[in-house]
Amino acid sequence: MTRYIDTQDIRDIVKKTGTATLISELADYIESDYKRWQEFDKCARVANHSRDGVIELMPTSDDQYYGFKYVNGHPKNTRDNMLTVMAFGALAEVSSGRPLLLSELTITTALRTAATSAMFAKKLARPDAKTMAVIGNGAQSDFQIIAFNKMLGIREFHVYDIDPAASAKLQANMATLDIKVVIAASAKDACATADIITTVTADKNYATILTPDMIRPGVHINGVGGDCPGKTELHADILNMASVFVEFEPQTRIEGDIQQMAADFPVTEFWQVLNGQKPGRRHNEEITVFDSVGFAMEDFSALRYLLDKSTALNIGQQLALIPAPQDPKNLYTLIA
Amino acid sequence: MTRYIDTQDIRDIVKKTGTATLISELADYIESDYKRWQEFDKCARVANHSRDGVIELMPTSDDQYYGFKYVNGHPKNTRDNMLTVMAFGALAEVSSGRPLLLSELTITTALRTAATSAMFAKKLARPDAKTMAVIGNGAQSDFQIIAFNKMLGIREFHVYDIDPAASAKLQANMATLDIKVVIAASAKDACATADIITTVTADKNYATILTPDMIRPGVHINGVGGDCPGKTELHADILNMASVFVEFEPQTRIEGDIQQMAADFPVTEFWQVLNGQKPGRRHNEEITVFDSVGFAMEDFSALRYLLDKSTALNIGQQLALIPAPQDPKNLYTLIA
Repeated sequence: MTRYIDTQDIRDIVKKTGTATLISELADYIESDYKRWQEFDKCARVANHSRDGVIELMPTSDDQYYGFKYVNGHPKNTRDNMLTVMAFGALAEVSSGRPLLLSELTITTALRTAATSAMFAKKLARPDAKTMAVIGNGAQSDFQIIAFNKMLGIREFHVYDIDPAASAKLQANMATLDIKVVIAASAKDACATADIITTVTADKNYATILTPDMIRPGVHINGVGGDCPGKTELHADILNMASVFVEFEPQTRIEGDIQQMAADFPVTEFWQVLNGQKPGRRHNEEITVFDSVGFAMEDFSALRYLLDKSTALNIGQQLALIPAPQDPKNLYTLIA
Repeated sequence: MTRYIDTQDIRDIVKKTGTATLISELADYIESDYKRWQEFDKCARVANHSRDGVIELMPTSDDQYYGFKYVNGHPKNTRDNMLTVMAFGALAEVSSGRPLLLSELTITTALRTAATSAMFAKKLARPDAKTMAVIGNGAQSDFQIIAFNKMLGIREFHVYDIDPAASAKLQANMATLDIKVVIAASAKDACATADIITTVTADKNYATILTPDMIRPGVHINGVGGDCPGKTELHADILNMASVFVEFEPQTRIEGDIQQMAADFPVTEFWQVLNGQKPGRRHNEEITVFDSVGFAMEDFSALRYLLDKSTALNIGQQLALIPAPQDPKNLYTLIA
């Protein structure tokens, strides 16, 4: 049997654990996998682009586990009252190919994206960072605020969206937390006092959410929304004046904000920062950018976490996804 | 909700339909997709090779559907009483990315592989073919016999395996059919009177199951087992004296028996034969080879068939794999 976590199971897991604690635990799994970067079989995701969106498969593996995620991105879905991003995935045993876990990954992707952002920012933002701007107040923004509050102690957030209803939603959702959420009149206003700027907009277009005049010295930019070919958020001059950190360089060159830049534009893979091989932030005036696109290893870490966590909490179901004939050389008897 | 077909559901579908009829219906779906070959977004599978086997993702899509299969190949699994090949997959709507169907594909892969073999052979074997040799009598062999009996009217099968128990299993499983199954003393004996030779062995090694002296003029070779890098079944001289037909050339160059040959070794993609653009068999003495590796489009056709068939028969379940929040821009409310 294959362990199975559906949308209700993940809600139960979050409820029992607490959203902030779960994001923080998840960040620990992701960080421990980044630290053993060399052990992973990595490849860029396999993407199918169509008129209205993209469907992708994101596989990766180490010696023990193989994981993959199915995920789409269809900005127009919200017009039909459907999610822009939906995902599920599986974790299998490398030695036998047996699938161990099938899981929803829609909610989990939101959690792991926020966990990854905060994990990067812990190393790249100024240690005294106190306020964060959040540009784009859609489905991912809540998770970003919770992650940065929990993992970096940020308690003041200036939020902006071209849709005021999105900002109102975000402010309302965060009302129970001991933080201050201010709705800004513009992206520029939101950034005016920010030590960290998170951009997490959804348009599938080249966009310029941030321009150089909005960036104060010492800011860390957590660029989450520019994550597929043709979809960027940052003005090229911001990238030129910043130190840019990425997950997996070959993938980010295609999908990240640096798709605007020359192929030799300098970037640092973050695992080298974590392992002390490359510097992170070098001084208080430096502008740092995490050009986030979402990497298969983060889903791998999330699947590993969900397998452990759902087992520990005894939450989840069992699926008969794979047959178990008495004689494995005699598959036909199953249907005879 | 996502429609779900588990191992019991597929058994129920086969039971209600009949194995031979189901293979034949499936072949019709596969053939109709081959005939509109140009409409598909095709890529070679994404493979993860490890010491004991391989895990692969096989995606493809047309304008309406996106499909993928997860499949492993671990020959050593039978020693632990597990299947060598296990598979599952999904079909999604291209316009929204919404997964419509999640299905077991282990049993289905056996059915679609046999359906594809017989579909190719209907065009490539001599029309008067009466006997078939089956070299390798493992989990796939039963399905091959049923497909060739149903779709080509073959009623005499000479079977051989290095493991006599495998041949005995095959003969016993086929006892209820109105066909003759003869266990041969050697692969050469099995081929002595064969009009069609099916090789479907499982070793993950360069092997030479067939040598030129075993091949009579006019034979069609259905080469199923040589299907990944380092795994071949046919002597290079057989390929040199034959007309070789493939599913998707870039993939077969890597995975098929033609991996032994030069990069410009001539092959024909079968969709061109079906559409009348290239000749199939040209005369009765010609030796034809289907260098089968298993192509993502065949799984796509199978998923399409299962979606239609399970709906028509009202067999299957519903999974809450994807959340449906009231406001799709407000994912957080699902866990708040």
